Amino acid sequence: MSSDPVTVTDVGEFGLIARIREGLSMTPNVIIGPGDDAAEVATGESVLITVDVLVEGRHFRRDWSSAVDVGRRAAAASLADIAAMGGTSTAVVVGFGAPADLPASWAQQCAAGIAEECGRAGAALVGGDVTAADQVVVSVTAIGDPPETGAVLRSGAEPGDVLALHGRVGWAAAGLAVLGRGFRAPKALVDAYRFPDIDYRQGARAAARGAHAMIDVSDGLVADARHIAEASGVAITLDPEALAVPEPIATTASAYNVDPREWMLTGGDDHAFLAAFPDKKSIPKGWTIVGVVQEGEAGVYVNGHRVTRQGGHTHFA
Amino acid sequence: MSSDPVTVTDVGEFGLIARIREGLSMTPNVIIGPGDDAAEVATGESVLITVDVLVEGRHFRRDWSSAVDVGRRAAAASLADIAAMGGTSTAVVVGFGAPADLPASWAQQCAAGIAEECGRAGAALVGGDVTAADQVVVSVTAIGDPPETGAVLRSGAEPGDVLALHGRVGWAAAGLAVLGRGFRAPKALVDAYRFPDIDYRQGARAAARGAHAMIDVSDGLVADARHIAEASGVAITLDPEALAVPEPIATTASAYNVDPREWMLTGGDDHAFLAAFPDKKSIPKGWTIVGVVQEGEAGVYVNGHRVTRQGGHTHFA
Repeated sequence: MSSDPVTVTDVGEFGLIARIREGLSMTPNVIIGPGDDAAEVATGESVLITVDVLVEGRHFRRDWSSAVDVGRRAAAASLADIAAMGGTSTAVVVGFGAPADLPASWAQQCAAGIAEECGRAGAALVGGDVTAADQVVVSVTAIGDPPETGAVLRSGAEPGDVLALHGRVGWAAAGLAVLGRGFRAPKALVDAYRFPDIDYRQGARAAARGAHAMIDVSDGLVADARHIAEASGVAITLDPEALAVPEPIATTASAYNVDPREWMLTGGDDHAFLAAFPDKKSIPKGWTIVGVVQEGEAGVYVNGHRVTRQGGHTHFA
Repeated sequence: MSSDPVTVTDVGEFGLIARIREGLSMTPNVIIGPGDDAAEVATGESVLITVDVLVEGRHFRRDWSSAVDVGRRAAAASLADIAAMGGTSTAVVVGFGAPADLPASWAQQCAAGIAEECGRAGAALVGGDVTAADQVVVSVTAIGDPPETGAVLRSGAEPGDVLALHGRVGWAAAGLAVLGRGFRAPKALVDAYRFPDIDYRQGARAAARGAHAMIDVSDGLVADARHIAEASGVAITLDPEALAVPEPIATTASAYNVDPREWMLTGGDDHAFLAAFPDKKSIPKGWTIVGVVQEGEAGVYVNGHRVTRQGGHTHFA
C-alpha cells in the first residue's frame, strides 16, 4: 500500500491514452476520432494549420499552474493562431512528453484542459502521441477553416489603416511577476498568467469586417506589431495612452515600482488579437484603437521613437 | 575566436527559423507557407491528421543518428500514419525543442531531413515552433488527403480476409541491437535503424485495391496486427514462415545467438504497411501475404498459440 500517486509509468502508454480518450467529446466536423493511425476532419477547400510547444520550466511550472491550466494554455497558443488568420479551429492533435514519475492524473487533467479550451473555440481533440521525456512537453497542432474572404495575413497592412486590439495585454506578464516574487495575489493577474481568456470568434469577426492584417499577440504588443510592420513594409505608431491601465496592473506596478505600460507593451502570453482595419468604422465593437499604419521605415514607433528592442519573448536567451 | 559550433542560442529563435525557412520548397497544395500565424493547405472535403513525437535518449541518440536521419525518422512516423489510412500527405508542421547548446547546424539539418522525407511523400514542411528544452524533442504533425474510397481504418478486417505486408520488418530492431553492442555493421541494418525507407504510395494503392483494414507497422508486426485484430474483433493468424529472413538479419541473429524472426515479429520502427485484403487477387504487387483473418477471440495467433505478450514498444516501462 502506498500513498504515492499513480504515475504514467504505472498505467502505461496505452492505459494513459485510454483514460484520456474516455473524457473526450467530438464535434460534427470529426469524421474519424482518436484511436486509428490518423483522425479525419471535415474541411472546405483548404485548411489552416499551426503548432505551438509548451515546455515545463520554460513556459510553465507545475507548482504555479494546474494541469488543466497548462493544457488550456497549450491549446490556446495554437487555437489563437488559427483565429488570428480569421479562421475557425476545428480540431487539434497533441504530442505529449511525460517524465516517468508524472502522476497519470496530471496528464489526464492536462488533456482535459486542452479539450476544454478546444471546446471554447469550437474544436475537438482528435488525436495525439504520448511518450516519455525528461520534462513535460506539450505540443499542440490546431487545424481550422479559413474565413470565406480568405485568410488574414500579417503582410496586408496598408498606410492609412487603423490598428486595433481585442483582448488583454500585460496581464499575464504582471501575473508572472507576481508569482516570481512568491505571491499569489492579485488573483486576477495570476489567473491571467495561468490560463487564457480568449474570445476566439473575434478573429473571424475581424476578417468579416475586412481586416487587412492580423496577428495573435503572444510575444508582446510591440513585438507582434513589429511582425505586422515588417511583413507589410509599413511603419506602425502605437499610442500607449490608448491603453487604459487596468486597476490590478496599476496597483501591482506601483507596488513593484515598475511602469505598468512596460508590461502592456512588451508582456507576452495574453493572446490578444491585433489587426489593421481600413478605417475606424470597420472596427468591430469591443476592439480598442491602439495605433495607426503609415508609410515609412518598417518598424514600430512609440512616443516618436522607433522601438528597436525585441520587446517580447526570446527563447535561447 | 572559438572552434565551438554556433549554437541555437547564438542564432536565436528567429534566426534559426530564418535559416530553416531558406531551405524549404513548397508544393502546389501550399496556399500560405511558413511565416504567418498559420499555414494554409488545399484540401478536398476532409483532411487526415496525425502527430508523432521523437525524444532524444528515447527514440534516438545524437551519436548514433545524424540530424538528417532524426528528421527523416520524425517525419516518417507521421507520414506513414497518413499513408496507412490510404491517404496522401500534403503538409507537416514541426514542434522542435532544443537544448541551449545544440549546434544551430544540427537543428537546420534535422529540419532538412524532415523536409527531405516530406518530399518523398509529396508533402511540404509548412510551419513550426522552436523552443528551448532540456533534450531534443521533435514533434511532427502531418495532414493529408484521404483516398476517394474513404480512409482505411484498423477496424475493417473481416473473417476470410488475407493479411499482407509491404516494407521491411525487423531491420530497424536488428540495427538497434548492432548499435547497442557498439558496432556499426552490417551497414544495411544500422541504416535501416537510422532512417526510414518507405514507399508512401503503397498506402493509397492498398486503399484503391479495396483493403478492408490497414495499419502502419511501427510498434512491431505482432503488436500492430493485434491492433487490427482488437479494433476489428477478429482472430489474426500470422505465418512466421511467410517472412523470408533477409541475409543481414540471418547473419547477425546467428552471431548474436537470437531468433531472427523474433526481430521480425516484434521489432518496431520499420514503418511497414500491414493490410487486410478481401482476397489474394486484390493484393498489390510487392506485398507479401503474412497471415489470414478468421473468426474467433480477438488477438494474434502464431504457430497455433495466442501471443499475449506486448510484442512491441512500450513507453514508460
